Amino acid sequence: MSTLKERDPRKAFGQALRHIRERKRLSQEKLAELAGIHRTYVGDVERGVRNIALINMNRLASALGIPLKELVGEMERIR
Amino acid sequence: MSTLKERDPRKAFGQALRHIRERKRLSQEKLAELAGIHRTYVGDVERGVRNIALINMNRLASALGIPLKELVGEMERIR
Repeated sequence: MSTLKERDPRKAFGQALRHIRERKRLSQEKLAELAGIHRTYVGDVERGVRNIALINMNRLASALGIPLKELVGEMERIR
Repeated sequence: MSTLKERDPRKAFGQALRHIRERKRLSQEKLAELAGIHRTYVGDVERGVRNIALINMNRLASALGIPLKELVGEMERIR
Protein backbone atom coordinates (compact mmCIF):
# COMPACT_ATOMS: atom_id res chain seq x y z
CA MET A 1 0.00 0.00 0.00
CA SER A 2 3.04 2.27 -0.04
CA THR A 3 2.79 5.28 -2.28
CA LEU A 4 6.54 5.83 -2.30
CA LYS A 5 6.98 4.49 -5.78
CA GLU A 6 3.96 6.36 -7.11
CA ARG A 7 4.20 9.75 -8.73
CA ASP A 8 3.16 12.86 -6.89
CA PRO A 9 -0.65 12.95 -7.26
CA ARG A 10 -0.48 16.70 -7.94
CA LYS A 11 1.71 16.09 -10.99
CA ALA A 12 -0.46 13.23 -12.23
CA PHE A 13 -3.66 15.23 -11.75
CA GLY A 14 -2.14 18.20 -13.57
CA GLN A 15 -1.14 16.05 -16.53
CA ALA A 16 -4.58 14.43 -16.65
CA LEU A 17 -6.28 17.82 -16.58
CA ARG A 18 -4.11 19.18 -19.39
CA HIS A 19 -4.59 16.04 -21.43
CA ILE A 20 -8.38 16.14 -21.21
CA ARG A 21 -8.53 19.93 -21.69
CA GLU A 22 -6.48 19.67 -24.89
CA ARG A 23 -8.58 16.75 -26.11
CA LYS A 24 -11.65 19.00 -25.66
CA ARG A 25 -9.82 21.79 -27.54
CA LEU A 26 -10.22 24.27 -24.71
CA SER A 27 -7.64 26.91 -23.82
CA GLN A 28 -6.60 27.26 -20.16
CA GLU A 29 -8.34 30.60 -20.24
CA LYS A 30 -11.62 29.18 -21.53
CA LEU A 31 -11.56 26.30 -19.05
CA ALA A 32 -10.86 28.72 -16.19
CA GLU A 33 -13.75 30.91 -17.30
CA LEU A 34 -16.15 27.95 -17.55
CA ALA A 35 -15.07 26.66 -14.14
CA GLY A 36 -15.11 30.06 -12.44
CA ILE A 37 -11.49 29.64 -11.37
CA HIS A 38 -8.61 32.06 -11.99
CA ARG A 39 -6.55 31.24 -15.08
CA THR A 40 -3.23 31.30 -13.26
CA TYR A 41 -4.62 28.81 -10.73
CA VAL A 42 -5.56 26.42 -13.56
CA GLY A 43 -2.01 26.81 -14.91
CA ASP A 44 -0.57 26.00 -11.49
CA VAL A 45 -2.78 22.91 -11.20
CA GLU A 46 -1.66 21.70 -14.64
CA ARG A 47 1.98 22.16 -13.63
CA GLY A 48 1.34 20.04 -10.53
CA VAL A 49 2.21 22.72 -7.99
CA ARG A 50 -1.22 22.95 -6.34
CA ASN A 51 -2.81 20.50 -3.94
CA ILE A 52 -6.24 21.14 -5.43
CA ALA A 53 -9.25 20.48 -3.22
CA LEU A 54 -12.53 18.74 -3.91
CA ILE A 55 -14.71 21.76 -4.74
CA ASN A 56 -12.33 23.04 -7.42
CA MET A 57 -11.72 19.53 -8.78
CA ASN A 58 -15.47 19.25 -9.13
CA ARG A 59 -15.76 22.63 -10.88
CA LEU A 60 -13.06 21.65 -13.39
CA ALA A 61 -14.70 18.30 -14.16
CA SER A 62 -18.08 20.04 -14.64
CA ALA A 63 -16.48 22.63 -16.92
CA LEU A 64 -14.93 19.79 -18.97
CA GLY A 65 -18.34 18.10 -19.13
CA ILE A 66 -17.13 14.87 -17.53
CA PRO A 67 -17.64 13.12 -14.19
CA LEU A 68 -14.83 13.76 -11.71
CA LYS A 69 -14.33 10.00 -11.67
CA GLU A 70 -13.15 10.20 -15.28
CA LEU A 71 -10.58 12.91 -14.50
CA VAL A 72 -9.28 10.88 -11.55
CA GLY A 73 -9.24 7.72 -13.68
CA GLU A 74 -7.08 9.53 -16.25
CA MET A 75 -4.79 10.64 -13.42
CA GLU A 76 -4.41 7.05 -12.24
CA ARG A 77 -3.71 5.81 -15.76
CA ILE A 78 -0.90 8.36 -16.03
CA ARG A 79 0.53 7.46 -12.67
CA MET B 1 -23.24 22.23 -16.60
CA SER B 2 -24.68 23.95 -13.52
CA THR B 3 -23.93 22.28 -10.23
CA LEU B 4 -26.73 24.08 -8.44
CA LYS B 5 -28.96 21.06 -8.33
CA GLU B 6 -26.14 18.76 -7.28
CA ARG B 7 -25.31 18.00 -3.70
CA ASP B 8 -22.34 19.60 -2.01
CA PRO B 9 -19.37 17.47 -3.13
CA ARG B 10 -17.97 17.60 0.42
CA LYS B 11 -21.10 15.91 1.76
CA ALA B 12 -21.15 13.32 -1.03
CA PHE B 13 -17.45 12.56 -0.59
CA GLY B 14 -17.89 12.20 3.17
CA GLN B 15 -20.77 9.76 2.72
CA ALA B 16 -18.80 7.75 0.17
CA LEU B 17 -15.79 7.59 2.47
CA ARG B 18 -17.90 6.41 5.43
CA HIS B 19 -19.71 3.88 3.27
CA ILE B 20 -16.51 2.29 1.96
CA ARG B 21 -14.77 2.47 5.35
CA GLU B 22 -17.67 0.63 7.01
CA ARG B 23 -17.78 -1.92 4.19
CA LYS B 24 -14.08 -2.59 4.88
CA ARG B 25 -14.89 -2.88 8.62
CA LEU B 26 -12.40 -0.21 9.59
CA SER B 27 -12.92 2.23 12.46
CA GLN B 28 -12.32 5.93 11.82
CA GLU B 29 -9.35 5.60 14.14
CA LYS B 30 -7.83 2.71 12.21
CA LEU B 31 -8.36 4.39 8.84
CA ALA B 32 -6.79 7.60 10.16
CA GLU B 33 -3.81 5.64 11.43
CA LEU B 34 -3.36 3.79 8.12
CA ALA B 35 -3.65 7.02 6.15
CA GLY B 36 -1.40 9.05 8.46
CA ILE B 37 -4.16 11.62 8.98
CA HIS B 38 -5.56 12.87 12.30
CA ARG B 39 -8.68 11.02 13.45
CA THR B 40 -10.71 14.19 13.99
CA TYR B 41 -9.87 15.27 10.44
CA VAL B 42 -11.24 11.99 9.07
CA GLY B 43 -14.39 12.58 11.16
CA ASP B 44 -14.75 16.08 9.71
CA VAL B 45 -14.34 14.76 6.16
CA GLU B 46 -17.02 12.11 6.74
CA ARG B 47 -19.39 14.80 8.05
CA GLY B 48 -18.77 16.80 4.88
CA VAL B 49 -17.31 19.85 6.58
CA ARG B 50 -13.86 19.71 4.98
CA ASN B 51 -12.89 20.60 1.44
CA ILE B 52 -10.34 17.79 1.33
CA ALA B 53 -7.44 18.17 -1.09
CA LEU B 54 -5.86 15.73 -3.50
CA ILE B 55 -2.97 14.48 -1.35
CA ASN B 56 -5.22 13.53 1.57
CA MET B 57 -7.85 12.02 -0.76
CA ASN B 58 -5.08 9.91 -2.20
CA ARG B 59 -3.87 8.83 1.24
CA LEU B 60 -7.37 7.78 2.25
CA ALA B 61 -7.91 5.75 -0.92
CA SER B 62 -4.53 4.04 -0.45
CA ALA B 63 -5.39 3.27 3.18
CA LEU B 64 -8.71 1.76 2.02
CA GLY B 65 -6.82 -0.29 -0.58
CA ILE B 66 -8.76 1.13 -3.54
CA PRO B 67 -8.00 3.47 -6.44
CA LEU B 68 -9.11 7.05 -5.78
CA LYS B 69 -11.27 6.69 -8.87
CA GLU B 70 -13.40 4.16 -6.98
CA LEU B 71 -13.92 6.50 -4.03
CA VAL B 72 -14.89 9.33 -6.38
CA GLY B 73 -17.16 6.98 -8.32
CA GLU B 74 -18.96 6.09 -5.09
CA MET B 75 -19.28 9.80 -4.35
CA GLU B 76 -20.88 10.41 -7.75
CA ARG B 77 -23.26 7.48 -7.31
CA ILE B 78 -24.41 9.02 -4.02
CA ARG B 79 -24.80 12.45 -5.51
